[in-house]
Amino acid sequence: MSLNMNSIIAKKRDGGKLTEEEIRYFVEGYTKGDIPDYQASALLMAIYLKEMDEEETFILTSAMRDSGDIIDLSAIKGIKVDKHSTGGIGDKITLVAGPLAAACGVPIAKMSGRGLGFTGGTIDKLESIPGFQTTLEPEDFYKQVEEIGISLIGQSGHIAPADKKIYALRDVTATVGNLSLISSSIMSKKLAAGSDAIVLDVKCGKGAFMENEEEAVKLAETMCKIGNSAGKKTVAVLTDMNQPLGHAVGNALEVIEAIDCLKGTGPKDVTDLALYLSGLMVYLGGKASSPEEGHEKVEEALSSGRALEVLRKLIVAQGGNGDVVSDYDILPKAQHSVDLILNEEMLKSSGIEGAKEVYVSEMENRLIGIASQLTGAGRAVKEDEIDPSAGVIVHKKIGDQVKLGEVLATFYGNDEKKVTNAIKEAASIYTFSMEPTEAPVLIKRTIM
Amino acid sequence: MSLNMNSIIAKKRDGGKLTEEEIRYFVEGYTKGDIPDYQASALLMAIYLKEMDEEETFILTSAMRDSGDIIDLSAIKGIKVDKHSTGGIGDKITLVAGPLAAACGVPIAKMSGRGLGFTGGTIDKLESIPGFQTTLEPEDFYKQVEEIGISLIGQSGHIAPADKKIYALRDVTATVGNLSLISSSIMSKKLAAGSDAIVLDVKCGKGAFMENEEEAVKLAETMCKIGNSAGKKTVAVLTDMNQPLGHAVGNALEVIEAIDCLKGTGPKDVTDLALYLSGLMVYLGGKASSPEEGHEKVEEALSSGRALEVLRKLIVAQGGNGDVVSDYDILPKAQHSVDLILNEEMLKSSGIEGAKEVYVSEMENRLIGIASQLTGAGRAVKEDEIDPSAGVIVHKKIGDQVKLGEVLATFYGNDEKKVTNAIKEAASIYTFSMEPTEAPVLIKRTIM
Repeated sequence: MSLNMNSIIAKKRDGGKLTEEEIRYFVEGYTKGDIPDYQASALLMAIYLKEMDEEETFILTSAMRDSGDIIDLSAIKGIKVDKHSTGGIGDKITLVAGPLAAACGVPIAKMSGRGLGFTGGTIDKLESIPGFQTTLEPEDFYKQVEEIGISLIGQSGHIAPADKKIYALRDVTATVGNLSLISSSIMSKKLAAGSDAIVLDVKCGKGAFMENEEEAVKLAETMCKIGNSAGKKTVAVLTDMNQPLGHAVGNALEVIEAIDCLKGTGPKDVTDLALYLSGLMVYLGGKASSPEEGHEKVEEALSSGRALEVLRKLIVAQGGNGDVVSDYDILPKAQHSVDLILNEEMLKSSGIEGAKEVYVSEMENRLIGIASQLTGAGRAVKEDEIDPSAGVIVHKKIGDQVKLGEVLATFYGNDEKKVTNAIKEAASIYTFSMEPTEAPVLIKRTIM
Repeated sequence: MSLNMNSIIAKKRDGGKLTEEEIRYFVEGYTKGDIPDYQASALLMAIYLKEMDEEETFILTSAMRDSGDIIDLSAIKGIKVDKHSTGGIGDKITLVAGPLAAACGVPIAKMSGRGLGFTGGTIDKLESIPGFQTTLEPEDFYKQVEEIGISLIGQSGHIAPADKKIYALRDVTATVGNLSLISSSIMSKKLAAGSDAIVLDVKCGKGAFMENEEEAVKLAETMCKIGNSAGKKTVAVLTDMNQPLGHAVGNALEVIEAIDCLKGTGPKDVTDLALYLSGLMVYLGGKASSPEEGHEKVEEALSSGRALEVLRKLIVAQGGNGDVVSDYDILPKAQHSVDLILNEEMLKSSGIEGAKEVYVSEMENRLIGIASQLTGAGRAVKEDEIDPSAGVIVHKKIGDQVKLGEVLATFYGNDEKKVTNAIKEAASIYTFSMEPTEAPVLIKRTIM
């Protein structure tokens, strides 16, 4: 029997297992425009409700990977290791872990997207450094990795167009939150990006895609299986996203915090996670015989200042002003800032009256992201321009003690109206308690 | 919160119950073209898999009814009774039951569609009578029902456009076979058609939409509940469709068989079912105090010849030649016919060798429909022209004894090539056995 969408939809609708031929027929036909949106969305809903098994999910991922260009990094010697985060607030880890791993001899040849969201992507953050170029010719990209060990550029070419089209459809048909569909979306792009091994940072908590730890574990496991089945060593780390990572949320603000970390003066959580993930990268990259040895190596790269020097070289190599690592005034500065100050009304919302000193017990992390986007640090639609100076500095986090009248967070940006709007969103970010609260555990689990 | 499709889809996807506001938002928005096909198909798949309860199904039906014109038959005195069949092979019941009920004083003001399928619809069958007009102005339609008790015309106006659009989408997204979606599709049109009471003939078996009796019962019950909730007395009869109804499948061929029934010389199954359904119509139309009394009345209308006279008047009133009731030569005659003859190869397919006399044990009823369509009696696409003379006369049915060399069925049509093609489909229609087989019970159940 020849393939047709109606019978493929019916098969999945009835809980059947789709064959490789059927899955590829769908992915290829939909990408080409031969299969209409309405058949694709019916199939996606059937997949959402009847699920795909591991084998189907792997085939779906492979078919999506094969829908576009597959980057060939074989011109670069060594085991190339990629790192991917499922997305969090204040996540500047690539800017720290990349140089750490590179300083230990792991070639980092990473292409990143821009995307929508609370802040820009890694590429947007780097572009806040005056002169920094995120577009390189392939030969220059390879050459830079060979010479200084790292290059971070914008996604070029045509990576997994099937994912782009399917994701856009899922977004408007209530079919986003399915394990197979999420995994295949992330992994199709990673598999096409050309690295030999992958470290996944799977965020979990209020500011993350997966709020629930159990689901985050499943996602991490599924993605590891896909990566390993595709011949790329893949490790996933489950990390907390119930509060921002570090204090800075924004583009130039996060660059500063990342540099601080490489100087040993950055926030502990960002530093710890960057060391942990880059330690795994060094291990996967064959430059250490165990994750523990990898960790020791990156700690040395940090304390010796070698990793900071790699970052400086990276900035210079891509046209930026390397002095930025010691002179933050080179970065764009916001003309306006407004403080969020602890007042009695906020305490009342937490059911507290008459106290002068309290503890932060919870944070509506997603609201911080939204507020950051409102300052101008992130894009709501693709066409939005980012204000590189904008964002939030979160002074108080879960477990911190805070006094009435003390500053909780500061909002920055060049557009005064946007900053004022952003702080309106911020009133209900914090929840307080009279008792000390423990900060959430940052690194929850490693799946390898 | 304002309504939006994404959240409506998500609610049903998670097994939630949709509100009237949400269902009407979907039906109205989709009919108007404000909601795209891809969101509608995702919702339909979610409905297919998570189902709708009785209340949601009723609301869906009402919203679809309200999407277009609602026929007002109040100009016609009395309780108008409609009859609807879910579709079968050789189903000419309306041509017999309509005149029977009308002869007992029940006003029959019926609009029928043409549709696609194995033969034409009632309207196509009537149009095989030379001169017969199926388009009447509303006043003429009402007047005819007042004067002779019956009028059968083509669907005019804009009945349930939502159903038309939703059905077309279901057809290409594997979302046809869901109880709520089937019921609402049928009943939205019936509720808009203006009659006060409805008799439903729900077919069940190999040639029917519902093969399974249990599912057919559920469908019948659901439709009765919808009709009664909408204030229209609704009765459903479950009838067998494992073999054709009567012997004739085709347009002019079925008109002849219908007239035979009204003369008392037609096949027993057609006559019995027409009497049973029209008896119910007479009861629902308030012209009998019980279905049994209704049955007695229609039997009298048949034996006295009054029902045949009603049919003759109907034909004359709508411009046809009334003499057709006694002179079948007035009807179009096929120029070609081919017999399907029992041969040894057919017996071999049933695992029988060396026998000279066997019994028909089973029929692939759907194949008879397909063969009929191939002769030219039905349309594959809307634009196809029907050959009114074409079709099949099925001589042997389940339980009949048949000898080697005897004619099982005859295929008719004006296009020799089509008739030859049709008979190729026919080889595997029959299954035989050495033992006598009982014919299936025709009237399985009545739900009221």
